[in-house]
Amino acid sequence: MAEYFVGNKEYFPGIGKIKYEGPKSDNPLAFKYYDPDKKVGGKTMKEHLRFAVAYWHSFCGDGTDMFGAGTQKQPWKQDAKDPMEGAEHKLDAAFEFITKLGAEFYCFHDRDIAPEGATPAESEKNLMTIVAKAKERQKATGVKLLWGTANLFSNPRFMNGAATNPDFAVVSHAAAQVKAAIDATIELGGQGYTFWGGREGYMSLLNTDLKREKEHLGRFLVMARDYARSRGFTGVFYIEPKPMEPSKHQYDFDVETVAGFLKQFGLEKDFRMNIEANHAELAGHDFHHELETAAALGLFGSVDANRGDPRNGWDTDQFPMSYYETSLAMLTILKIGGFTTGGLNFDAHIRRNSVDPSDLFEAHIGGMDAFAVGLEVAHRIIQDGKYAAFVKQRYASFDAGDGARFEKGQMKFEELAGLAKEYGSVGFTSGKQERLENLLNQYLLGL
Amino acid sequence: MAEYFVGNKEYFPGIGKIKYEGPKSDNPLAFKYYDPDKKVGGKTMKEHLRFAVAYWHSFCGDGTDMFGAGTQKQPWKQDAKDPMEGAEHKLDAAFEFITKLGAEFYCFHDRDIAPEGATPAESEKNLMTIVAKAKERQKATGVKLLWGTANLFSNPRFMNGAATNPDFAVVSHAAAQVKAAIDATIELGGQGYTFWGGREGYMSLLNTDLKREKEHLGRFLVMARDYARSRGFTGVFYIEPKPMEPSKHQYDFDVETVAGFLKQFGLEKDFRMNIEANHAELAGHDFHHELETAAALGLFGSVDANRGDPRNGWDTDQFPMSYYETSLAMLTILKIGGFTTGGLNFDAHIRRNSVDPSDLFEAHIGGMDAFAVGLEVAHRIIQDGKYAAFVKQRYASFDAGDGARFEKGQMKFEELAGLAKEYGSVGFTSGKQERLENLLNQYLLGL
Amino acid sequence: MAEYFVGNKEYFPGIGKIKYEGPKSDNPLAFKYYDPDKKVGGKTMKEHLRFAVAYWHSFCGDGTDMFGAGTQKQPWKQDAKDPMEGAEHKLDAAFEFITKLGAEFYCFHDRDIAPEGATPAESEKNLMTIVAKAKERQKATGVKLLWGTANLFSNPRFMNGAATNPDFAVVSHAAAQVKAAIDATIELGGQGYTFWGGREGYMSLLNTDLKREKEHLGRFLVMARDYARSRGFTGVFYIEPKPMEPSKHQYDFDVETVAGFLKQFGLEKDFRMNIEANHAELAGHDFHHELETAAALGLFGSVDANRGDPRNGWDTDQFPMSYYETSLAMLTILKIGGFTTGGLNFDAHIRRNSVDPSDLFEAHIGGMDAFAVGLEVAHRIIQDGKYAAFVKQRYASFDAGDGARFEKGQMKFEELAGLAKEYGSVGFTSGKQERLENLLNQYLLGL
Amino acid sequence: MAEYFVGNKEYFPGIGKIKYEGPKSDNPLAFKYYDPDKKVGGKTMKEHLRFAVAYWHSFCGDGTDMFGAGTQKQPWKQDAKDPMEGAEHKLDAAFEFITKLGAEFYCFHDRDIAPEGATPAESEKNLMTIVAKAKERQKATGVKLLWGTANLFSNPRFMNGAATNPDFAVVSHAAAQVKAAIDATIELGGQGYTFWGGREGYMSLLNTDLKREKEHLGRFLVMARDYARSRGFTGVFYIEPKPMEPSKHQYDFDVETVAGFLKQFGLEKDFRMNIEANHAELAGHDFHHELETAAALGLFGSVDANRGDPRNGWDTDQFPMSYYETSLAMLTILKIGGFTTGGLNFDAHIRRNSVDPSDLFEAHIGGMDAFAVGLEVAHRIIQDGKYAAFVKQRYASFDAGDGARFEKGQMKFEELAGLAKEYGSVGFTSGKQERLENLLNQYLLGL
Repeated sequence: MAEYFVGNKEYFPGIGKIKYEGPKSDNPLAFKYYDPDKKVGGKTMKEHLRFAVAYWHSFCGDGTDMFGAGTQKQPWKQDAKDPMEGAEHKLDAAFEFITKLGAEFYCFHDRDIAPEGATPAESEKNLMTIVAKAKERQKATGVKLLWGTANLFSNPRFMNGAATNPDFAVVSHAAAQVKAAIDATIELGGQGYTFWGGREGYMSLLNTDLKREKEHLGRFLVMARDYARSRGFTGVFYIEPKPMEPSKHQYDFDVETVAGFLKQFGLEKDFRMNIEANHAELAGHDFHHELETAAALGLFGSVDANRGDPRNGWDTDQFPMSYYETSLAMLTILKIGGFTTGGLNFDAHIRRNSVDPSDLFEAHIGGMDAFAVGLEVAHRIIQDGKYAAFVKQRYASFDAGDGARFEKGQMKFEELAGLAKEYGSVGFTSGKQERLENLLNQYLLGL
Repeated sequence: MAEYFVGNKEYFPGIGKIKYEGPKSDNPLAFKYYDPDKKVGGKTMKEHLRFAVAYWHSFCGDGTDMFGAGTQKQPWKQDAKDPMEGAEHKLDAAFEFITKLGAEFYCFHDRDIAPEGATPAESEKNLMTIVAKAKERQKATGVKLLWGTANLFSNPRFMNGAATNPDFAVVSHAAAQVKAAIDATIELGGQGYTFWGGREGYMSLLNTDLKREKEHLGRFLVMARDYARSRGFTGVFYIEPKPMEPSKHQYDFDVETVAGFLKQFGLEKDFRMNIEANHAELAGHDFHHELETAAALGLFGSVDANRGDPRNGWDTDQFPMSYYETSLAMLTILKIGGFTTGGLNFDAHIRRNSVDPSDLFEAHIGGMDAFAVGLEVAHRIIQDGKYAAFVKQRYASFDAGDGARFEKGQMKFEELAGLAKEYGSVGFTSGKQERLENLLNQYLLGL
Repeated sequence: MAEYFVGNKEYFPGIGKIKYEGPKSDNPLAFKYYDPDKKVGGKTMKEHLRFAVAYWHSFCGDGTDMFGAGTQKQPWKQDAKDPMEGAEHKLDAAFEFITKLGAEFYCFHDRDIAPEGATPAESEKNLMTIVAKAKERQKATGVKLLWGTANLFSNPRFMNGAATNPDFAVVSHAAAQVKAAIDATIELGGQGYTFWGGREGYMSLLNTDLKREKEHLGRFLVMARDYARSRGFTGVFYIEPKPMEPSKHQYDFDVETVAGFLKQFGLEKDFRMNIEANHAELAGHDFHHELETAAALGLFGSVDANRGDPRNGWDTDQFPMSYYETSLAMLTILKIGGFTTGGLNFDAHIRRNSVDPSDLFEAHIGGMDAFAVGLEVAHRIIQDGKYAAFVKQRYASFDAGDGARFEKGQMKFEELAGLAKEYGSVGFTSGKQERLENLLNQYLLGL
Repeated sequence: MAEYFVGNKEYFPGIGKIKYEGPKSDNPLAFKYYDPDKKVGGKTMKEHLRFAVAYWHSFCGDGTDMFGAGTQKQPWKQDAKDPMEGAEHKLDAAFEFITKLGAEFYCFHDRDIAPEGATPAESEKNLMTIVAKAKERQKATGVKLLWGTANLFSNPRFMNGAATNPDFAVVSHAAAQVKAAIDATIELGGQGYTFWGGREGYMSLLNTDLKREKEHLGRFLVMARDYARSRGFTGVFYIEPKPMEPSKHQYDFDVETVAGFLKQFGLEKDFRMNIEANHAELAGHDFHHELETAAALGLFGSVDANRGDPRNGWDTDQFPMSYYETSLAMLTILKIGGFTTGGLNFDAHIRRNSVDPSDLFEAHIGGMDAFAVGLEVAHRIIQDGKYAAFVKQRYASFDAGDGARFEKGQMKFEELAGLAKEYGSVGFTSGKQERLENLLNQYLLGL
């Protein structure tokens, strides 16, 4: 079993490489639908889905919530003689887990993988020390970095924001972290670098200069991009919408808000959206809506794959399981050609009372299976072509004649208005929503 | 009492001109706080607040809801020999009401004031016939048109949208209505023209080409603007964000979404936001947030003054009464110099069980009083200067030195990052939220 | 095709009896999963599911919403010489539809089937006239009445409530309607009688004596029950929780609230819950939660089968389609032995833009298929026994020894407290939520 | 200044006894409206409002949230040689704070005041050791215990619930804690004992026997009550509704749910509700609604005074500041005779970025002022009598004649129905909601 981990100690003993066993398997530690090498329309499932494990939830989080202490006894946290040795143990556990699971990628924040030092310089040194070790493990296992990021929200110094902090000194600390995290991402061959503005928002408008804060955020992102490009980073920058929590209101509210922001600061060429299901829900949107909106704007990038609970108004970050959500998500993604640099990052954590070592595996297996099913459903939908044909026909009046002239901007308003001669029965074409929904259910069960 | 109405019949007998009687008055038909000619910082209350009565709710709506028929027996609807005479009776009732109330403005949809005819041409003729009569009444009473708009959602032909309808023929009908409504607005000296996209959104993504629909909407607005300008309209175009209802999702979700949309289609010079409190709430925002956001983007225009119920997830369109909401709204509006072409339009209706003729007056009186109090509170806050001074001080590190260079874009990321030498106690400045909230309460009670 | 309708005119021409064609069928007018005579664990699907068509949505509603007029041109509304003839046409259309669809039951409000007359006596006469005709059609077709009810919310006289109206005279009008509706239900062999308190709540606490209103409601239900029993009604009374809309707050908020209310007024023997998915959602509960809660309280009765949109805060009353919701619903229902007098009533309406005559069929077909799938999934789960075994084991410490003594009330608090000697690792048993969720997905795809 | 604290060290140096300075004061550390000895209708403000400081938020919490570590550097946590000395320092800080603030009461969880030991016995010993010291300080300062409670949610052993844990051993640990906490409460003369079931609910219905869990909870409360009574506790038991968080669903969802539960287990004589504003909001209710409902059921007890943010779906636990909420709350409380054993406990914490030592004072001052204003407004409303008279008149038809007979149960349904002879204009009495809302605004500004 040594092939599945690279460190000195096995942190998930008794669990080997997770295998595909098919839909009838009653082995909780096997894939039922995710068959990595199965071809779906010219690419393998693995190539399509590009799964990533989130370092923070899986190896740092321990079940702590606002009402109680951690419950999950992660062995890699237990016998290190100092924080740097602890970080290396965690790295071993992470690569063991990712390798056994068979995920292709991982994602991390700077502080997930290396401890903060006494000064910015020491923090950076710690980070780069661990990065060197991670690089070795990447090489040894073939696991790759989907994207890196910096944690600009946990340290108390960011309590008033990071790039939007009213104190310029804090902005410089944010920059120090981002610079090092970009360097680390480049060093590890990361295909993307992500910004999530955990505290880039406000707690109260009474003490906030909203305009100035947003401008600082724009400035900061421009500078960070320029730095990364100057260092040879050719990957994609992601920005991750979230409407609130921990702040009362976060500037990157949703896809549309962020799209406007990116254009305002000339960032729309370099940045793409990293869209999270649970964040969509908190913003009052379907996950599918956010994906379609980003796709329509040409700004889709990557996915934080999880789910919320529609009854709970906070980020529950549960593992995705709804075939409806995964099918519609993959439908949008396939329609625009699939992932390029992005992937499906499990920004999800097991429940606080999921304390068996195998629970972390089972949760990821469930999420991967759910997206494998979603991929197959979406592929069937596209192959079948019924939806696309219906939608094309629905807008056919814009494909020729006056409609096409309207669409191309070749018509004056007076002329357009003049076309309306009789009320007649104009507009009474059924949207056929129920038929299309029924069809989705058929596709889901395998039409 | 004849001076307060202009038609042949008094529709609100027994109710005269509403007067200011002061905070101790127990006359439900008197203003307690709104004293039109009282000066607040150089302008009268009337000049500041620019109240408008919404034709649709006050003279067309009758208490109907999804679960039952109308309850309010409006006499102007009862004895007309045909729809056009009915429209004129309604006009009389409206001008009587507005004049007795002492509001300076009104707002209307085309179909509110004139009935749809058998053809677009007849509808337009009906509209312009009533417009001529409205113009006389405006002249006779001094009441002005704040803005006009077209109802592109009630007629069944718009069931799949108006400018975003998948059937081009419907788009032309929408244009016919908007063209006539723009003409009507110009004829009546309207200071603005408003777009609210009641069905410009989708019921299901399964049958929707979201990208194409949004482009059609953009195209339509460009064409309508160009038409209006070609006809000499010099007023402002308003666009009114609303996230949903009746559609599942409406494209003009919130201020940020609309701002991005306006820029995408080059409309940001001519369009401003008409912000509604209840719509803000449905989008998950504070009314104050939407106002501040529009102000920061330079896109604030006008206000649909109402309130929702935070427990009810639909547009309850109640009259504004919260001093907190009106104070914070007026604070933002005063900070940016007050209304120019916009105003406070009561897009609100009395409750279904408010069936006394005086209820319509009392509701408006309450709303006007609430904004009069809000104006005074906001003025006190600005005069006192404590909030402004606190906020200025909070961001002072950006007013000089490195912070100012950062803000002006005169710094590279490496330099910024390099400024972070020691962690020290950087960033631990209290936001003083509780102090500022306590202060708001003091201002509210008259500090 | 004459066998499928009983009147003189065919209202759904071109559509015959809906047949089961299996999962691969691409006929939108065929069942894919609902095979009425298929046995699932000893009963046929039809016996299990007891589908009912809701008269109000399917034959009265026409696509009207708060923002626009009806869109659906129902031929049965178009050529009647008076309201009573219209009612008979509607009856013909209804029985034609129900028969073609193959639903076993229907449900109605008094005003759905017969028009209000000029006096209570005339209204009752109208009702009983139509009831006689409905009885004939029931006999001719075999279609049965699941339950009847009275519409105590549409008429303006109920604007302040019905049984909770502050005006006693209105309470008597509510009683007149309920009495006649009970008589009608008995006459038609209805297996239940339902109360939904559309306006039994408040718009504002400022004008409401909440305690007195709730007592009036309790009194009213007691009296109505006694009347029905005295008339020989042996069926079940249902009460349908809904938290709000059209009222701001409705007294029958959710299952727990109603359970407390029933006990307070001694109604818990005769009343059971009619649980609606969309109402559960508006109350902040999963549909499954409300069903489980009612089951645990011994108060489950029947289901209003529909769905809401988790992004829209009003009663969208869409047809059920989520296999997750139908599976979990059927799981609870099967666990407690299945329906007795209750059934699955489609309290759902097609979208406003679903204007094809076939849309009404397709919507019901989709809902029936969704519940057929849910039934099969639930049956598989129960047969497999994994969930039940897990749960049983999870609580095993209460099945014997001290735990059992605690459960039976044979232990004092001091003794219980005294059992806690060492903290040890008490309580660290994984809830295995992810495993159980993964399993649900396997069951759903056919394990 | 030594009179305001009792320990050896002053933890809030530079802040003395908070004094009333009146509405014009610009001293953030003075009361503007709360004048403890001011008489309002026969009782002083202090007697009316019975303010309590919540030990957990004010002396244990440090600004930690799910996204970051604590920010508030509480000196009482910094130089203790062991946990018990730390607990005593905290006690000193607490009594210093409460005394300086001038609150009459405090509330605590067992684990707030004393550290958990290595065994239940040691934990209890720790608790009673600190209780003895607290008793001295109560005596020295006059500060009293409003209520005590046990923290049954923070320790990992409660991850699956406490009294509802599927593992009986955990139930015994919960009992050990509750028993000791009851003993502590009795020893300190606490006027109440509170249950808040932080994890008494479920994360997933798939692994939960909801019925059995609720029965265990009922059993546990019965046993705990009997124990306390046997020990001579004559105070009130409070149960605190909350719908969710940290659990997905909490059994004590809202007032109505809890009322049904109390009756089911025969607890309604001994238990009263402790109602929290933020919890009401999370359950979809106005705070005022929950208070009125509890009052109507005769189950009102005490208040956890805070507020949520209607835009944020979690327990933000902010200090109350809305005069609307405090006025309506005090209106209900005064109407039923005011507090008896209960009081206004500030279950609220300062924002994470409120790091000045004075912020904790200012927050409490603001909350106390807000309730002082609410008290005065409510008193004015009651003195004025307009609301009461309106409501009485609105239901007058039930005060005599047939209405009264109906109310008393002296009428059969047939007779009631028979009273409805003519439809006429029955029921068209305006609810006057707008008038009553306007009046509230007048009262608020001092009518």
